Amino acid sequence: MQAVVYNGPRDVVVKDVPDPKIERPNDVLVRITSTNICGSDLHMYEGRTDFERGRVFGHENLGEVIEVGGAVDRIKVGDMVCVPFNVACGFCRNCERGLTAFCLTTNPDPNVAGAAYGFADMGPYNGGQANYLRVPYADFNCLRLPDDAREKEHDYVMVADIFPTGWHATELAGVEAGDSVVIYGSGPVGLMAAYSAILKDARTVMVVDRHPDRLRLAESIGAIPIDDSKGSPIDQVLALTNGKGADKGCECVGYQAHDPQGHEHPNMTLNNLVRSVKFAGGIGVVGVFVANDPGAPDTLGKQGEIVFDWGLLWFKGQHFGTGQCNVKAYNRHLRDLIHVGKARPSFIVSHKLPLNEAPEAYKHFDARDFGWTKVILKPNQS
Amino acid sequence: MQAVVYNGPRDVVVKDVPDPKIERPNDVLVRITSTNICGSDLHMYEGRTDFERGRVFGHENLGEVIEVGGAVDRIKVGDMVCVPFNVACGFCRNCERGLTAFCLTTNPDPNVAGAAYGFADMGPYNGGQANYLRVPYADFNCLRLPDDAREKEHDYVMVADIFPTGWHATELAGVEAGDSVVIYGSGPVGLMAAYSAILKDARTVMVVDRHPDRLRLAESIGAIPIDDSKGSPIDQVLALTNGKGADKGCECVGYQAHDPQGHEHPNMTLNNLVRSVKFAGGIGVVGVFVANDPGAPDTLGKQGEIVFDWGLLWFKGQHFGTGQCNVKAYNRHLRDLIHVGKARPSFIVSHKLPLNEAPEAYKHFDARDFGWTKVILKPNQS
Amino acid sequence: MQAVVYNGPRDVVVKDVPDPKIERPNDVLVRITSTNICGSDLHMYEGRTDFERGRVFGHENLGEVIEVGGAVDRIKVGDMVCVPFNVACGFCRNCERGLTAFCLTTNPDPNVAGAAYGFADMGPYNGGQANYLRVPYADFNCLRLPDDAREKEHDYVMVADIFPTGWHATELAGVEAGDSVVIYGSGPVGLMAAYSAILKDARTVMVVDRHPDRLRLAESIGAIPIDDSKGSPIDQVLALTNGKGADKGCECVGYQAHDPQGHEHPNMTLNNLVRSVKFAGGIGVVGVFVANDPGAPDTLGKQGEIVFDWGLLWFKGQHFGTGQCNVKAYNRHLRDLIHVGKARPSFIVSHKLPLNEAPEAYKHFDARDFGWTKVILKPNQS
Amino acid sequence: MQAVVYNGPRDVVVKDVPDPKIERPNDVLVRITSTNICGSDLHMYEGRTDFERGRVFGHENLGEVIEVGGAVDRIKVGDMVCVPFNVACGFCRNCERGLTAFCLTTNPDPNVAGAAYGFADMGPYNGGQANYLRVPYADFNCLRLPDDAREKEHDYVMVADIFPTGWHATELAGVEAGDSVVIYGSGPVGLMAAYSAILKDARTVMVVDRHPDRLRLAESIGAIPIDDSKGSPIDQVLALTNGKGADKGCECVGYQAHDPQGHEHPNMTLNNLVRSVKFAGGIGVVGVFVANDPGAPDTLGKQGEIVFDWGLLWFKGQHFGTGQCNVKAYNRHLRDLIHVGKARPSFIVSHKLPLNEAPEAYKHFDARDFGWTKVILKPNQS
Repeated sequence: MQAVVYNGPRDVVVKDVPDPKIERPNDVLVRITSTNICGSDLHMYEGRTDFERGRVFGHENLGEVIEVGGAVDRIKVGDMVCVPFNVACGFCRNCERGLTAFCLTTNPDPNVAGAAYGFADMGPYNGGQANYLRVPYADFNCLRLPDDAREKEHDYVMVADIFPTGWHATELAGVEAGDSVVIYGSGPVGLMAAYSAILKDARTVMVVDRHPDRLRLAESIGAIPIDDSKGSPIDQVLALTNGKGADKGCECVGYQAHDPQGHEHPNMTLNNLVRSVKFAGGIGVVGVFVANDPGAPDTLGKQGEIVFDWGLLWFKGQHFGTGQCNVKAYNRHLRDLIHVGKARPSFIVSHKLPLNEAPEAYKHFDARDFGWTKVILKPNQS
Repeated sequence: MQAVVYNGPRDVVVKDVPDPKIERPNDVLVRITSTNICGSDLHMYEGRTDFERGRVFGHENLGEVIEVGGAVDRIKVGDMVCVPFNVACGFCRNCERGLTAFCLTTNPDPNVAGAAYGFADMGPYNGGQANYLRVPYADFNCLRLPDDAREKEHDYVMVADIFPTGWHATELAGVEAGDSVVIYGSGPVGLMAAYSAILKDARTVMVVDRHPDRLRLAESIGAIPIDDSKGSPIDQVLALTNGKGADKGCECVGYQAHDPQGHEHPNMTLNNLVRSVKFAGGIGVVGVFVANDPGAPDTLGKQGEIVFDWGLLWFKGQHFGTGQCNVKAYNRHLRDLIHVGKARPSFIVSHKLPLNEAPEAYKHFDARDFGWTKVILKPNQS
Repeated sequence: MQAVVYNGPRDVVVKDVPDPKIERPNDVLVRITSTNICGSDLHMYEGRTDFERGRVFGHENLGEVIEVGGAVDRIKVGDMVCVPFNVACGFCRNCERGLTAFCLTTNPDPNVAGAAYGFADMGPYNGGQANYLRVPYADFNCLRLPDDAREKEHDYVMVADIFPTGWHATELAGVEAGDSVVIYGSGPVGLMAAYSAILKDARTVMVVDRHPDRLRLAESIGAIPIDDSKGSPIDQVLALTNGKGADKGCECVGYQAHDPQGHEHPNMTLNNLVRSVKFAGGIGVVGVFVANDPGAPDTLGKQGEIVFDWGLLWFKGQHFGTGQCNVKAYNRHLRDLIHVGKARPSFIVSHKLPLNEAPEAYKHFDARDFGWTKVILKPNQS
Repeated sequence: MQAVVYNGPRDVVVKDVPDPKIERPNDVLVRITSTNICGSDLHMYEGRTDFERGRVFGHENLGEVIEVGGAVDRIKVGDMVCVPFNVACGFCRNCERGLTAFCLTTNPDPNVAGAAYGFADMGPYNGGQANYLRVPYADFNCLRLPDDAREKEHDYVMVADIFPTGWHATELAGVEAGDSVVIYGSGPVGLMAAYSAILKDARTVMVVDRHPDRLRLAESIGAIPIDDSKGSPIDQVLALTNGKGADKGCECVGYQAHDPQGHEHPNMTLNNLVRSVKFAGGIGVVGVFVANDPGAPDTLGKQGEIVFDWGLLWFKGQHFGTGQCNVKAYNRHLRDLIHVGKARPSFIVSHKLPLNEAPEAYKHFDARDFGWTKVILKPNQS
């Protein structure tokens, strides 16, 4: 089959790789019809992780089941399914608590909890930017889609990762109806976090970034765009919240945060959040941070350490939640909101491209080129 | 009256100050019979905060009500009361949610939420290491004690701060029955956190420190003492938890953390916790950290910044809660446990001294001299 | 002043009563500008409670503060305030946990927790269907309104009771985004429960009743109206939920529930809910039930007992929460949603009348006359 | 193999039945070494359910894995496992939320959620009062035991049902440290609920019953025994709680509740709880209630309906949780507490008997004969 393969920093190629097959009785095979490029793919694309050359990208996958293993009870050939980016077993101590992002079974590295498709440090699983994908523990991992699966496919594919991840940011922060919320980052995840806060009936949702196309999308769903190239985002947030700061905050950028001049500061959004959120407020961090960043510009960065305003954080009594999203905690509900027409996350999609245009798409998305907000690849489209 | 007054770094004096009086109709006056020296007093004592000379220390107070203002309904003259260290109004947005440590009314600084008696940056309220104390919003702030108030006074006085603060550490971390828990620090708060985890039926409670008297106290309540002068505390915790790390962790040391050789590292316990706690685990931080530390040895420290292993924390998906304890969230229940004999927090008390011995007591407690684990001052004892 | 006074079953009069005055230093006086007739007033109006003749009705009150007691710190003369129907102290064991509907201070009956204005069994407090109202513990009980208080007065007055009460129904039931929810009752509280579920982004909200004007209001906010005079409401709910039942249910009718033929069955909506809600689902009950109903048609009813499908409830593993709403748990957030334009609860208002038209209004509202969905009285309007 | 088979009301026989075998690739076979008789077996034994003749009893099972299906990854031959009484799939909407008692996959009746071994209405699964048991979805359902499995076998077998079920009662009620708690019923589940409340550091735990041997066991773990044959249990509870009622209550008796004179009243314990628990208190109901009871003495009872004090319940604003326990929500933690020596639930065991003495054991346990508090059958003991 054809697949998007990592070939080194800023270099992906579409080439032939062996077809996946049923390896264990709980597996199914999915023929991929939509698979997104994710902002976290870009960390790997830029060579800022230890993702191995030759591996297939793609952890936001949707498609049709074409084969099922002998122990699969619930999922049937022909089902349209959205596949959470986490590979989880369903029966370990963490999975049974709903912590599927920290599965203790599926990552062969005994020092790591959690696995994902086509992801650095997250196990040997190939990604779905390809014609086919093998899904382990399929009864547990596959989300079946209703009869409008094809019609709303570009909404449903967002349920594999970024819609639940944006929702997770608001859950980690503790967003509830009536809150004021500040989101750092208006990439796809930041927009989904803003959209989630709005669905949860937050009073005020502020989105900090500087790309006009993305800020305009934030504004289009009812958020207040804050351009940090026009002045301190902290000051702008304080001005909108009676000088007190937002009730809750979300970090949707990660360790490659840049200032408006283009310089990287891995601590920038975190320290801004401490100052932008009120005393006793909550902060959810879903932007990716890594423990090893060989490509970092300095020694601290290489070890994943940051200079952090801990004193102020503690004095303000804030709490932080972090980490990858447990997609299964939210994906049924978000699917249902799409089904009944109460959510339409595809508003962020800018491009739907055949698989062989992936190299160009990666280049433009990585450059944050104007208008490239979210790309869906269509591997099996004629 | 006599009071313990701050006179500059490592210098307290007992001297005459004006008696407090009813200033507002919701005030009461309390004749103090027990008032503790707290570990957080030591940060001020050492001159590592901006606590003003001339102010009275003391935020762990218990005594008898001797006068009540005209709007006080519940509290009566003669009541024995334990006074939470937080000064809270009971009607602001935060108090009505139970966040009494972040009261929006009682601190005149509009940029700070929360107030306390005799505490740097926490409002103008004098402390209770004195004959008398004025308590504002007394119906809200005073915890009435039952008829064994005198008999169990040295247990009940712990409910003003360190017993609830230790309990708070376990709440912020999310400790539940069956958990393994690691506590950094075996000072009074660390011991109270360990005691709280044990009361909550944690499976295993580990306490990291190096003072043999304090580790022995930890052991006496059923915790596992871990001596960090004998080897890496992280390795010792991992060895006790199948290499996975503890389910939950508590920080009970604060920004003046020292290594066994006596060198200060404000990030030491926090980074150790990230490595000692498992993936998706929770961490509660009640050790004091400050946003301004003029006495810090370096520039980062002066601004309350630390070098923090954020990358690893995020990769592990940990969450942490911080800040001062909302004493009223727990003090009724802890009082009741003492009353029925299920808790006896006075096991940490090493000294009960008249007020005029406060200067000596501060000196020994600050030096962590052997056997000086917790001092109760007795201001009105003949 | 003029006030709406209870004069016996189905008989209210507007007459002169003494002006309230500051009785204690924590009191304020409010000049009432809007005060609603509530569905729970009708139980008293019909003589189906032990509400005493001569007392003043009215527990949904909004107005301007005209005098403050000597111990009041936060509330000022001139403030526009919305007054929760609960009279609460702010410092008892229940209030400090947020259970202001069960205040242990304000009801002089030691066997009852909780107090309210103008309400049977809820203490001696007069109601606000009058020119003026005395509000005890005013710093705790008054919700200050922003500068659009006059403009949005008919939205804000809903925050005194029925908007939070409807919200409370969904909280007791555990409604979350994506849920299907069935509401029994499309009176003002039922409509507010439906509105709350919709604000919380429920997937499907069904409202069961038979009054076409009220069902039409339900439909106007996006709920699915279910007419129980056209067929079994249980069957209709099951048909809309794949035969499984709704995820969550709300009871917003109370003990005077009638079948479509007009016969009273106090257990009707409760038993319907057990059958309309799925296994392990949650049910919130805010419709009023009473322990003593002298006017009930049978012996069970007189004692507040019902024949209840407990066996089925237990087999289905459902949970339910009951009781009056703790208004302060929600009123700030709901006020803020109104202020920023995200909620407009006044959509239920059908009539705004001067105080002297109260007797007619009670008559029509009690008869569920077509178009009388919610009445606001305007006591001080020229 | 030999098995305990239901032969009609009050008639069980031990006889040969076919050995179970691996039916699906996710199954394992367990050689049973301990299997308890449960109080809920007695409802079936007495013919008060629609349990079918010829079926095998036994849902509290522990033993050694002797064969595993081809899709089983985690469980190995030779593992000692404790088997939750719920048969659950691990991947349905309810299981993935932890509601394993309401599995949507394992019960073939589409109108029922949840399945269990050897249980009326809970699917076709045979029980484990036999030499062998088939366990479906074994990776999800089996709890592996540590190396002291044989030594502490009679503690660990309680983790299959009654220890988690008692714990569940306290969770449904919302018991937390410092609470006063009243338990109705001192059978095995009531004793486990009391034990759980004590482990959770409740302030006061009261157990209501009348069998002196069982009340003595309650007293032996620190609970206060309340003999309802000596006077109103409500009055006794109120006397111990300042007239206010307990903070929380647990129902551990079920629909066959008897008064001290031996008359059955299915509503007795529930109505007593409403009166024994305070305003705004919580009540957890794990005693079995059934929707169909053909053997009930009256019409209401046959339909599972009771006369219930709903009016008082609502006035008091209490909340109720009900239903079978989701064993997997607690079994790891409870196993761990046994392993480290902090829990020893076998204190309730009165008899350990070979399988062929089951008929006698059922007779004595059903009669509540003195000293027959809990029976463990030992099917494979030589």
